[in-house]
Amino acid sequence: MNFLDKLKAITAQNNSLLCVGLDPDLSKMPEHLQAQEDKVLAFNREIIDATHDLVCAYKIQIAFYSAFAKEHELASTINYIREHYPEVPIILDAKRNDIGNTAIFYAKEAFERYKADAVTVNPYMGFDSLQPFLEYKDKGVMILCRTSNPGARDLQDLKVSGKPLYLYVAEKVVNEWNANRNAMPIVGATYPEEITEIRAIAGDIPFLVPGIGAQGGDIEATVRSGINSQGTGLIINSSRAILYASQDKDYAAAARKAAEQTRDQINQYRIVSATSSKP
Amino acid sequence: MNFLDKLKAITAQNNSLLCVGLDPDLSKMPEHLQAQEDKVLAFNREIIDATHDLVCAYKIQIAFYSAFAKEHELASTINYIREHYPEVPIILDAKRNDIGNTAIFYAKEAFERYKADAVTVNPYMGFDSLQPFLEYKDKGVMILCRTSNPGARDLQDLKVSGKPLYLYVAEKVVNEWNANRNAMPIVGATYPEEITEIRAIAGDIPFLVPGIGAQGGDIEATVRSGINSQGTGLIINSSRAILYASQDKDYAAAARKAAEQTRDQINQYRIVSATSSKP
Repeated sequence: MNFLDKLKAITAQNNSLLCVGLDPDLSKMPEHLQAQEDKVLAFNREIIDATHDLVCAYKIQIAFYSAFAKEHELASTINYIREHYPEVPIILDAKRNDIGNTAIFYAKEAFERYKADAVTVNPYMGFDSLQPFLEYKDKGVMILCRTSNPGARDLQDLKVSGKPLYLYVAEKVVNEWNANRNAMPIVGATYPEEITEIRAIAGDIPFLVPGIGAQGGDIEATVRSGINSQGTGLIINSSRAILYASQDKDYAAAARKAAEQTRDQINQYRIVSATSSKP
Repeated sequence: MNFLDKLKAITAQNNSLLCVGLDPDLSKMPEHLQAQEDKVLAFNREIIDATHDLVCAYKIQIAFYSAFAKEHELASTINYIREHYPEVPIILDAKRNDIGNTAIFYAKEAFERYKADAVTVNPYMGFDSLQPFLEYKDKGVMILCRTSNPGARDLQDLKVSGKPLYLYVAEKVVNEWNANRNAMPIVGATYPEEITEIRAIAGDIPFLVPGIGAQGGDIEATVRSGINSQGTGLIINSSRAILYASQDKDYAAAARKAAEQTRDQINQYRIVSATSSKP
């Protein structure tokens, strides 16, 4: 099943647009896990067991693993999801970008080594740097347009051909780089007006939207500005607000509660929005 | 010793602006190595032994390792250089970029896990995404400006504030992001006019210049356009043309010959250029 079909099925099954980011920060993990050998995997397993029926995807930020030589735990986390919850798609958040000859190897890393369903990439080097990813037709390729951090203003907001660079990139994602129907924009939740602009040109294509929770993005504004004509089209990521809802032994139960609240909050505006904008 | 001082010392010692890229492509490695367990490390060791006195740096492209779960060989390659040729700086070519909270972990990966002397990064997400790297004051941070691939035109050539985006980025690298004197532009050898433009605003700051050899960049044009007032200021990378000069048992000797020729060719224009532009 390709990424979009898998996403559609799980969105319906779990009635959810929430993506949980598995970014295990050792310094924030519960104390009782700290002595454990495979603490990252143990932490992730508990979070996954507690949230799998509330999410439309898991996003794994690779830096949190590679900083500490924990590639094995990353692979084991993916295997765990595959084995127990094969219906949930996995996004490898790697923001890779390089010339074509090298991008081939980054695409292998994401799709063959880790067997992710989708990967995040950076568009600065242009089409031929993205093509090796896009050629995996069954995989999703999520391309940075407008990000959720303050520095997004430095380049992404610059005007090119009378429009901001992020919108120019989003148009390329939608109109030029989407020949295999597997390219998607990434738009930070901290800028709902930009989400609206990009939705206006993107039809029903799903967006990856990081930045709610710890980064301060507003759920209502995000959903109202980004929802598509099907009442879907958003993969709204929250990492820290869910993973560290409690830093005590009850962290998995607390994560479930936070995930459920977030999912329901998203759905509340999703329904209103879908209703109000449909005939 | 910080990165710039280390670069200066080795450039003088080896009379070289040549950087050899250690990008071991298993499909191009000599047949007699293919059966070997640690073939990547064995291949790199031979190349390093054969070229260490001809280079100003080694650049390690991480994708060629991470695609095949060869992080251990990457670390061992770095350890080998450190142990035998500690004077040669190591650039980790990773082109990382993410929000600040994640960039901290990418910086840890490059500078603490792998102990690289410098890392390549992508500027699309702006200053706060680069800051965690730049805060390692002794390390070099090489920032994509104008790359050597065809797709570089897609975004980097777009006009912003009356100038191409790559020049706008280069100005930021030089004037805003270089507070710790450790930021450097990356400019592809395939576009010598762009190298000239960026040198005009960058003073004597070193550039990382990929794209000679297999990518077709012209050595004379690269050196003449990019040399600084000291007759240095370029780290000119060649990977495939040196690593695979021979795909037979004599690959190390062939690599040495190719590296020596390339270094000497660079120096030929370097001297002319430095002489002709000085009083």
